[in-house]
Amino acid sequence: MELLKGIDVANAINEKLIKESADMGGRVPKLAIIRVGERPDDMSYERGATKKMEKVGFACESFVFPETIENEAFQKEFDTINDNPEIDGILLLRPLPKHLDEEAVVGRISPEKDLDGISPVNLAKVFAGDKTGFAPCTAEAVVEMLDFAGIDVTGKRVTVVGRSLVIGKPVSMLLLKKNATVTICHTKTKDMKEECRRADILVAAAGVAKMITAEYVGKGAVVIDVGINVDNNGKLCGDVDTDGISSLASVATPVPGGVGSVTTSVLAKHLLQAAKENR
Amino acid sequence: MELLKGIDVANAINEKLIKESADMGGRVPKLAIIRVGERPDDMSYERGATKKMEKVGFACESFVFPETIENEAFQKEFDTINDNPEIDGILLLRPLPKHLDEEAVVGRISPEKDLDGISPVNLAKVFAGDKTGFAPCTAEAVVEMLDFAGIDVTGKRVTVVGRSLVIGKPVSMLLLKKNATVTICHTKTKDMKEECRRADILVAAAGVAKMITAEYVGKGAVVIDVGINVDNNGKLCGDVDTDGISSLASVATPVPGGVGSVTTSVLAKHLLQAAKENR
Repeated sequence: MELLKGIDVANAINEKLIKESADMGGRVPKLAIIRVGERPDDMSYERGATKKMEKVGFACESFVFPETIENEAFQKEFDTINDNPEIDGILLLRPLPKHLDEEAVVGRISPEKDLDGISPVNLAKVFAGDKTGFAPCTAEAVVEMLDFAGIDVTGKRVTVVGRSLVIGKPVSMLLLKKNATVTICHTKTKDMKEECRRADILVAAAGVAKMITAEYVGKGAVVIDVGINVDNNGKLCGDVDTDGISSLASVATPVPGGVGSVTTSVLAKHLLQAAKENR
Repeated sequence: MELLKGIDVANAINEKLIKESADMGGRVPKLAIIRVGERPDDMSYERGATKKMEKVGFACESFVFPETIENEAFQKEFDTINDNPEIDGILLLRPLPKHLDEEAVVGRISPEKDLDGISPVNLAKVFAGDKTGFAPCTAEAVVEMLDFAGIDVTGKRVTVVGRSLVIGKPVSMLLLKKNATVTICHTKTKDMKEECRRADILVAAAGVAKMITAEYVGKGAVVIDVGINVDNNGKLCGDVDTDGISSLASVATPVPGGVGSVTTSVLAKHLLQAAKENR
């Protein structure tokens, strides 16, 4: 089994971005990260995104609000950022605290700044297979990894485990657009093992630590692990028991160091695209 | 094999609508049908929709424009209809002639009047599994037929042949929402027969006359035919060779007289929903 590492994919994207951004005429693409409260997950993603923007030479500003901010005040702050022409793209760390109206923000974020594809306009474009929109970064990172590894998905059986609007559904649509035959599985699926085992490419986005064992993997399958979980020993792990499937899969992505490492590079790619449109 | 006829499903929906609309306080839901040119398909659907609205006691007005109408003039006419508070819902017959900017219309139609689910807001809702939006009527008609027949799709293998934004993709999302395990096939799928044969429920929306023969159908499968084609003898037919599969399928829908007959009832259902919101 070949281990497909995110760092290699990310580096390839980064290099391309640095080249492509050279002709921006000195205008540096700028990302706004919006965070409410101090959730460790959010802060970790924020650090990763900030570092990635630095790496490719893009600007990044964090707008951090206390968890106690009132809804009206937050909506106003959001509009100011959303309307600021200096800001090319926005990353909103979600979920927001429950007292804040997240739906209102999602409905109002400018589609052309909506780098993580949360607005209805971008969701509809992903659904339609219209590439002018922004797909959720993690979903697109899966596609970037397959592309980098030279895996053509045309006509292949892809099984996606998970049907969230952030990963399962958009990655299904992106791979369908690339002519894969896509099966979407979830907790209500009967005989999940069989559905997974027949896949040429298995995308695990269930959010269940190491649920994908050898019984779920067909000989020679490509296994992309989108899960980020903590195992019984408090260690970060994916949805895939990578050691357990190593004699079956032809290619697998590790966690950590897999899809997650590519996500912020896709974010940077989206930022450059937004900045070019915004010029 | 049991033949699941559209008329029975449509009648059940119609009856419900007549009851439910009784409490509208004399306000009659009103549909606007927008047609450009004289395409026989459009005119046939327009007649069907008009008759259906009459049947359930709803109002219906056709706005017909010559095929030669200029884009600017058409967009203006569209806005007038779209902004008219007397009109609760709109059915735009598509595709529009090529010189008209269909994308602009789709982007501007009020989501709450967009009965056939063409606007980004409604597409995004269908994608998200948010039932407050309008799904394309034909896709929802498939679900209505399964519901009427008492077929629970939970955990079942559903294979959808076709990935259009009008049927294949939305029907996949609607059935996924109902907990089916959905596989989306298309022209690039390898071994289409195998993908179809393993389905508990097969939805044929390929637009190819009688392509689904016995080789595509597993023992006991439910086969829903969404195709509307013309066969070699000039006769209307579906995507399914209904005679050929009769010893295999447990249930199948005929064409004509199947899903198509339910579509306008779903349109009427959406109109009532829109009118209630519009009060």
